[in-house]
Amino acid sequence: MNDEKSELGRKILRLKQQKGLTWAAIAERLGYSPTWSCAACLGQMSMTPEAAEKTALLFGLDEAETAVLQQIPYRGSLPSMPPSDPLIYRFYELLQVYGTTWKELIQEEFGDGIMSAIDFDMGLERQPDQKGDRVKITMSGKFLAYKRY
Amino acid sequence: MNDEKSELGRKILRLKQQKGLTWAAIAERLGYSPTWSCAACLGQMSMTPEAAEKTALLFGLDEAETAVLQQIPYRGSLPSMPPSDPLIYRFYELLQVYGTTWKELIQEEFGDGIMSAIDFDMGLERQPDQKGDRVKITMSGKFLAYKRY
Amino acid sequence: MNDEKSELGRKILRLKQQKGLTWAAIAERLGYSPTWSCAACLGQMSMTPEAAEKTALLFGLDEAETAVLQQIPYRGSLPSMPPSDPLIYRFYELLQVYGTTWKELIQEEFGDGIMSAIDFDMGLERQPDQKGDRVKITMSGKFLAYKRY
Amino acid sequence: MNDEKSELGRKILRLKQQKGLTWAAIAERLGYSPTWSCAACLGQMSMTPEAAEKTALLFGLDEAETAVLQQIPYRGSLPSMPPSDPLIYRFYELLQVYGTTWKELIQEEFGDGIMSAIDFDMGLERQPDQKGDRVKITMSGKFLAYKRY
Amino acid sequence: MNDEKSELGRKILRLKQQKGLTWAAIAERLGYSPTWSCAACLGQMSMTPEAAEKTALLFGLDEAETAVLQQIPYRGSLPSMPPSDPLIYRFYELLQVYGTTWKELIQEEFGDGIMSAIDFDMGLERQPDQKGDRVKITMSGKFLAYKRY
Amino acid sequence: MNDEKSELGRKILRLKQQKGLTWAAIAERLGYSPTWSCAACLGQMSMTPEAAEKTALLFGLDEAETAVLQQIPYRGSLPSMPPSDPLIYRFYELLQVYGTTWKELIQEEFGDGIMSAIDFDMGLERQPDQKGDRVKITMSGKFLAYKRY
Amino acid sequence: MNDEKSELGRKILRLKQQKGLTWAAIAERLGYSPTWSCAACLGQMSMTPEAAEKTALLFGLDEAETAVLQQIPYRGSLPSMPPSDPLIYRFYELLQVYGTTWKELIQEEFGDGIMSAIDFDMGLERQPDQKGDRVKITMSGKFLAYKRY
Amino acid sequence: MNDEKSELGRKILRLKQQKGLTWAAIAERLGYSPTWSCAACLGQMSMTPEAAEKTALLFGLDEAETAVLQQIPYRGSLPSMPPSDPLIYRFYELLQVYGTTWKELIQEEFGDGIMSAIDFDMGLERQPDQKGDRVKITMSGKFLAYKRY
Amino acid sequence: MNDEKSELGRKILRLKQQKGLTWAAIAERLGYSPTWSCAACLGQMSMTPEAAEKTALLFGLDEAETAVLQQIPYRGSLPSMPPSDPLIYRFYELLQVYGTTWKELIQEEFGDGIMSAIDFDMGLERQPDQKGDRVKITMSGKFLAYKRY
Amino acid sequence: MNDEKSELGRKILRLKQQKGLTWAAIAERLGYSPTWSCAACLGQMSMTPEAAEKTALLFGLDEAETAVLQQIPYRGSLPSMPPSDPLIYRFYELLQVYGTTWKELIQEEFGDGIMSAIDFDMGLERQPDQKGDRVKITMSGKFLAYKRY
Repeated sequence: MNDEKSELGRKILRLKQQKGLTWAAIAERLGYSPTWSCAACLGQMSMTPEAAEKTALLFGLDEAETAVLQQIPYRGSLPSMPPSDPLIYRFYELLQVYGTTWKELIQEEFGDGIMSAIDFDMGLERQPDQKGDRVKITMSGKFLAYKRY
Repeated sequence: MNDEKSELGRKILRLKQQKGLTWAAIAERLGYSPTWSCAACLGQMSMTPEAAEKTALLFGLDEAETAVLQQIPYRGSLPSMPPSDPLIYRFYELLQVYGTTWKELIQEEFGDGIMSAIDFDMGLERQPDQKGDRVKITMSGKFLAYKRY
Repeated sequence: MNDEKSELGRKILRLKQQKGLTWAAIAERLGYSPTWSCAACLGQMSMTPEAAEKTALLFGLDEAETAVLQQIPYRGSLPSMPPSDPLIYRFYELLQVYGTTWKELIQEEFGDGIMSAIDFDMGLERQPDQKGDRVKITMSGKFLAYKRY
Repeated sequence: MNDEKSELGRKILRLKQQKGLTWAAIAERLGYSPTWSCAACLGQMSMTPEAAEKTALLFGLDEAETAVLQQIPYRGSLPSMPPSDPLIYRFYELLQVYGTTWKELIQEEFGDGIMSAIDFDMGLERQPDQKGDRVKITMSGKFLAYKRY
Repeated sequence: MNDEKSELGRKILRLKQQKGLTWAAIAERLGYSPTWSCAACLGQMSMTPEAAEKTALLFGLDEAETAVLQQIPYRGSLPSMPPSDPLIYRFYELLQVYGTTWKELIQEEFGDGIMSAIDFDMGLERQPDQKGDRVKITMSGKFLAYKRY
Repeated sequence: MNDEKSELGRKILRLKQQKGLTWAAIAERLGYSPTWSCAACLGQMSMTPEAAEKTALLFGLDEAETAVLQQIPYRGSLPSMPPSDPLIYRFYELLQVYGTTWKELIQEEFGDGIMSAIDFDMGLERQPDQKGDRVKITMSGKFLAYKRY
Repeated sequence: MNDEKSELGRKILRLKQQKGLTWAAIAERLGYSPTWSCAACLGQMSMTPEAAEKTALLFGLDEAETAVLQQIPYRGSLPSMPPSDPLIYRFYELLQVYGTTWKELIQEEFGDGIMSAIDFDMGLERQPDQKGDRVKITMSGKFLAYKRY
Repeated sequence: MNDEKSELGRKILRLKQQKGLTWAAIAERLGYSPTWSCAACLGQMSMTPEAAEKTALLFGLDEAETAVLQQIPYRGSLPSMPPSDPLIYRFYELLQVYGTTWKELIQEEFGDGIMSAIDFDMGLERQPDQKGDRVKITMSGKFLAYKRY
Repeated sequence: MNDEKSELGRKILRLKQQKGLTWAAIAERLGYSPTWSCAACLGQMSMTPEAAEKTALLFGLDEAETAVLQQIPYRGSLPSMPPSDPLIYRFYELLQVYGTTWKELIQEEFGDGIMSAIDFDMGLERQPDQKGDRVKITMSGKFLAYKRY
Repeated sequence: MNDEKSELGRKILRLKQQKGLTWAAIAERLGYSPTWSCAACLGQMSMTPEAAEKTALLFGLDEAETAVLQQIPYRGSLPSMPPSDPLIYRFYELLQVYGTTWKELIQEEFGDGIMSAIDFDMGLERQPDQKGDRVKITMSGKFLAYKRY
């Protein structure tokens, strides 16, 4: 079901390179953050009609493609798990090393529940550092308490 | 190899509850962040002799246990993958949804390479919000460029 | 981490049988629904101190066991997946047959998002039927919309 | 074996969107519930000749496609397990958290046996709620007792 | 959950060998077929109080063991799948070779539905044959039609 | 290697439906049982030249297709294991529930060895029953004793 | 079920080393080949009462252990697949490289069927060679033709 | 990488059948054993230029195909493991039953090391037998001792 | 995402063979080591514009292909794990045999951390030896210490 | 089978730490390299009687433990694959990134065959570097050519 969306994602990546665009510039046009704009272009988010229209204008997409951008995806962007790509694997590794730590710290602070991955946003930026610049990722998800009924 | 470390981790969790300690308080004593202190007590990090000594004092651990805190762990804190626990699974889900987005954004900004999960630090805090408080996680890892040789 | 909770769950099952209690009766004492009460006794939910106290009184549990009832579980109650037990497998089968139907119907009605399994409740009752009584299950979970940011 | 049915399912989804139909409207035409009608259009149920005829009329399908609707499917609608899509995964999560609870409650009420996933029906509706509307799912399956012979 | 039942199963196998009993003789005492009696003794079926009492008498089991015989099992008797034991693997092989044939033949005769594995019985006997005796297995399960609703 | 055989199997299923044939009628023409004839048409058995010729005549197959019917298959008819289709899964379930029972009963009767799945035949028929007709399956395989050498 | 047999196997290996026995010597005492004798001592074959008695005499086993030698094993001697041990893995590798060759050659010579792994024997010997001695393995299994019925 | 080689393998199988050749006859032409010749034609071995030339002559292959025969394969001839085909599975079964026996016997005779699967040859022949002919397989691999350094 | 890069890799392998080039010669042209040059041509590394230009000149690639060489790959070159090809499997085997040894030796010498696989280089050469030439592989990766924070 | 060897390995690690020994010092006593000495102490290699005697003297082991050191191990040192520990995972990652490169380079230089992991040795040393010291690993394995027969 996702084939159309991921194929369109690959097309957008090619067009982005040809046009010399950055995700920051694309995001500004769409009126969303770079993270969400990138995820949506790669087919992991569904666009509003307005955002899809703006994306179509920017990249010269046709009507069918504009409709694809608005479709709700069958999510899951990775060809296999654990991911073979080292950049993505490092996040899988963090999960293995810090999984129980996340559980401890969130539960101490908030009680029994989870951090939502739906009512969620994320940013990514360069953190200059003399010993070598760093990747800084900021995640924020609503705390959802387990219902007792 | 990790059995001693995770068993000690469970003991520390029980003692922490009995003594009414928080990870913030433990962290202050150790002189490290709450995230790292928690991960180290749960057996996923190796302590310096000084930190192990302070931890032993705080929880009343014996010499053998103090030595265990300094051991380098065979890392990996989860009993199975994908994780069955919903709190931890949400991070696995983020990996599936945002994996290709992380790759795109990091490579646009930094070129071919990865965010280190070794030269890495992380914080977790409560983000007050009228619609329900949020869990805020901040990660920072050194960018490492792929060597061309 | 869950070993204490699931061991206690097995003990409660034995005591329940000896005392001739039903989940409805246990639930009434605890002040929660039979579904939640059963899940909590089996170690998949964390009890409030009050509910744990009532459970302890009912089954004659000691202080350490009462504390275990209040612990937040590392969730996941099944020894393997897909489940080998036929009763539980049927739900796995429903997932395979109706997975895409749930996605279609929820998205048509609510848009892009999910049904929460955290802010969630469920009931189970007997539905008399001439051709053979039926099991009726009612689930209700809050709809959570995917955030666009 | 299912390729024809799932391809036809995708075609129907496109036609449904173009014609601005809802599953409720489609269901009314077919004379079945929205849940079953959706599952049948997506290729997980076999239609009677009458229902197939009505579906063909509604969407303008040809004779070969009408025959496909009547074929008995090789069931299983998900590309992989556990499902990578968060909406569908939540049901997998319920299975892990509530699996043993379902077993306990059904067996207390009915004895040794299962809830049928064949002689089974299901409904899905919006449950208005001030704190955010809820998804309500109602399942009903015939209880089948294990035969002793 | 099944540990008690499978441990008791192993004990019964030892006692059966010591007493020189056959499954036919045990079955006659219990008033059920040899197949069901064997499956119940090995812990995959739940006995009625009467059958459990008779089994206890025959093998000299105590009260707790008699209760275990009546428990409803978490079914699944094999340590791993595919089964490593050649006798059991042959049935797995039949599934792979004849799976689509069973589907074709049952559906031609009965329509869309399944053969129940719950309302089910089975027998096993020796079939004398000059070229070497044969194992004859007879299965019978109620046909359950898929409900259209 | 099996692609040609399973593709031809799908073609035969379509032709069978168009011609309104039953497996019983096809079997009579071929001179074999319905079970074997169905398995052979679906590509899991190799036909003799005579049987292939008769099948070709019945369905109007060309010479290349007639040759394909005689090829020895790379056996295995299911797209994945455990099978997602409920009809076929029930046999997988029987394997899990009755695996150790088959082993016990065959070994008590015959000693150390297996039931052959090669020197094997099977039949399937409708068993009329007031409470709902039943599927009856009869299997017969030669007992093969483990050689001691 | 196999735990007793593999534990006894480990005990026999220790006794064999202490007594300075070879498999050839053990085999001669038992009256079987070294291959079968070794497999039986390691718990993968069931001994006749006579062979078990001789083994017990040789190693000083008690009555319960002598009974264990006669039990029919739940076969499968490897802790995981693919095997991590390099000596055993090489056979797994042969399976991957030569699997289709075995199929071709056996079918050309014998037609549709298999080489039995039950009516089967095997020998292993040293093959002197100037460039380094070789391991020579000779297998012999009865050809079983697929039954057409 | 292997696609060209396995496609060519299928072509050779068709041509072999059309020309009525046997592996023995092909092997004689190539100057190698039937086992190796068959494995090489199926794409699991790399041919010398001379052998490839002879094969091309025999089957009428073009220059590109002759080059493919000389390519070193990415080895592994089976679509899945464990193999679903019964003939090939029997070898997998032997691995499970005899794995520890091979290890014991080879180590007793040769010490710590392995039987090479590279410096390896194998033959397969018919062994006439009154109770039914047998498949005889002879393997020979150089013993390689583990280096101590 | 990698399909373009691995397809181009296969094309380069064919051209390399036609032109009679060696990896040493290619590497000299590119100004990098043979190991890195080979990995980059096979699609596991990203080339600088200059290196891509030189590669294009050498093999007669067009502009689109030159761009593909500069793309950052979704890394992971193997069709399945564990690898079925014996040459590559031997490295998987080393991982199983020497994994804990690497951990011990690196940690004794450097403390808690890892050898980088990103800031990493490798060489491969022939080591003449009277008993048979040897493959010599030299790896060098920067040590990265686990951050304590 | 390996349990004794890996338990002894853990004991040696504790004794090594207490006595303040290094692998270099242990290796010198044994007369082997540090890599092999470490692998042998951790239970992945079998010692000669002399080396075992020296190890026993150094660590104060008893006779049974000295015998364990000489046993041939069932090799495989890792609790799961892919390895969860980051240090060991990096080698798994190298396998995925460089697997096809190793194949290309070895085959160009040596022809069709493999690098032996049995007739193999390895060293590990610190490589001083201004930008941060490096881990240098040198592997050497005999080339084994595929036999054509």
